[in-house]
Amino acid sequence: MGSESDECSTAVILGVDGGTTSTICVCLPLLPFCEQHQLPDPLPVLGRAAAGCSNHNSVGENAARETLEQVINEALSRAGKNRSAVLAICLGVSGVNHPSDQERILNWMRNMFPGNVKIYVQNDAVAALASGTMGKPHGCVLIAGTGCIAYGFTEDGREARAAGAGPVLGDWGSGYGIASRALTAVVKAHDGRGPETMLTDCFLKSLGLASPDEIIGWTYADSSWARIAALVPLVVSCAEVGDQVADEILKNAVQELALSVKAVVQRLYLAGEDGSDSFPVVMVGGVLENNKGWDIGKEVIDSILKAYPGACTIRPKVEPAIGAALFAWNMMKEKEANGQSR
Amino acid sequence: MGSESDECSTAVILGVDGGTTSTICVCLPLLPFCEQHQLPDPLPVLGRAAAGCSNHNSVGENAARETLEQVINEALSRAGKNRSAVLAICLGVSGVNHPSDQERILNWMRNMFPGNVKIYVQNDAVAALASGTMGKPHGCVLIAGTGCIAYGFTEDGREARAAGAGPVLGDWGSGYGIASRALTAVVKAHDGRGPETMLTDCFLKSLGLASPDEIIGWTYADSSWARIAALVPLVVSCAEVGDQVADEILKNAVQELALSVKAVVQRLYLAGEDGSDSFPVVMVGGVLENNKGWDIGKEVIDSILKAYPGACTIRPKVEPAIGAALFAWNMMKEKEANGQSR
Repeated sequence: MGSESDECSTAVILGVDGGTTSTICVCLPLLPFCEQHQLPDPLPVLGRAAAGCSNHNSVGENAARETLEQVINEALSRAGKNRSAVLAICLGVSGVNHPSDQERILNWMRNMFPGNVKIYVQNDAVAALASGTMGKPHGCVLIAGTGCIAYGFTEDGREARAAGAGPVLGDWGSGYGIASRALTAVVKAHDGRGPETMLTDCFLKSLGLASPDEIIGWTYADSSWARIAALVPLVVSCAEVGDQVADEILKNAVQELALSVKAVVQRLYLAGEDGSDSFPVVMVGGVLENNKGWDIGKEVIDSILKAYPGACTIRPKVEPAIGAALFAWNMMKEKEANGQSR
Repeated sequence: MGSESDECSTAVILGVDGGTTSTICVCLPLLPFCEQHQLPDPLPVLGRAAAGCSNHNSVGENAARETLEQVINEALSRAGKNRSAVLAICLGVSGVNHPSDQERILNWMRNMFPGNVKIYVQNDAVAALASGTMGKPHGCVLIAGTGCIAYGFTEDGREARAAGAGPVLGDWGSGYGIASRALTAVVKAHDGRGPETMLTDCFLKSLGLASPDEIIGWTYADSSWARIAALVPLVVSCAEVGDQVADEILKNAVQELALSVKAVVQRLYLAGEDGSDSFPVVMVGGVLENNKGWDIGKEVIDSILKAYPGACTIRPKVEPAIGAALFAWNMMKEKEANGQSR
């Protein structure tokens, strides 16, 4: 064992973001924790590795475990470190919803790392939140990509979620929700149930179809939610040139997304008793990305601010895997501040 | 060959209803056609057989063909007839949407029957319409079971449809649409996005779940649309005892279903230029069945009548397979009246 300063210069923290399409692991040095609370910018990433899905619901437990082990070993290898250098690891993994999910992954990690390594297992929304708060697990994160979910956390460990129930259960603010409503509008315009819309020509041209009749077959030919969600930019472009149907669909999505955040804020009293306290709202995902024209993210923020003027919206500058690493760093720092040994 | 009266007493007409869950074939005598235009009540069904799905989209072409051949042979066998007794056959088969679908089934039937047998291949909505109009292909049929569709036909051969695009494309009046909205309402009440509703206790008790959180897992454990749609009676029962959320969901379904019919009526001018002409609207499917309390079918009819006072709603007394047989009978009768030989 080296001295404490040796340990600080060689020790590392790992952050894992296990999403439904890929799993990322980053390896950060412990430097900022030893020297100051102000984080360096850019953060010195020692190693980074990517692998496939680690959601056990999608790929099964064995494949999920192998993917996590592989991506961790690869990130350490690229950083020129071995497992003994790891002081803490935080895994934010999609599909972690119950204590039993947490315990399973904790057991895998205890097999990889000796007993004194701090291991934190969370839902991937925690990694997304921490990517905006630089590690602090406090506030609300809104994720809107193919799916959507609002997740909130308080410093005393309470948490709440809204939406994130998938398309059958009405995640209308998601990319899938927006695009499926737009496809529906085209079908309705075609069969006489709805007004004409520019979405028709736009979709037919983009999908290479001859008639709206063919949209039914196109939709059910492949049940992938991401394939439908990929049409969102077409909806935005139609709304930007004044199409009322597309505009209504986006306005409705904004309402749904803002409502998810408000429900979480209210249940956790994130804005305090009178609703004016300051708290972070981290915005993540393709649907919420900055856009010069019809900006869904900006509209959602405006709606949240009307209800909670203290909401402090953040668009993260680092990826969720770094958020996970910073979460681990923050937890260690808190324990140190509380006089606990690590 | 026997005399004409011999032919009438031994000849039969076949009707096939090929749905997504089962295929029914009935064998009727030609008697009413020979003697009078007034049909006997009850109709003398000589033979009836049931088999599985014959939608080629679901089971493939070979299985669809085998199912149709099997159910036809079985119905003839039970009637004590052989193929040479068949004068005409009408097949209303789900998944028949394009001329190529029609041609494929026509070819199968031409292989089964000699060239002078009249063969009619239609979408299964035609069988449902004919079950209400006793064979006349004129008017609009609204089918609302697991899915929903409005289909309209005119005596000069024009046709139009509305809805029937499946759950991704917004068939909100269907059993699946009603039940998925109700499940969504339970999730929303639970996570704070929506008002409390009796649907929560009702669904949890019926599904044997402990918490609304478990509804997400229940929903995605089995993607069968019929499994979701089977929850409709629970939604109706909650609306009947005054639950506002359930009531709103049913009112919305009524609007969607009535809109589908109105769109078809308008496109085909079924109600004439001034909207007051009389035309049949045939109502089929579990969602539209008579109900002493909250009656979805009655509300749909009321909405249609407000727009088109000449709409004559019919709840069929015979099954769609008999409708198909009567369609064939009617087509033969029309040709006879027009002086054409069969």
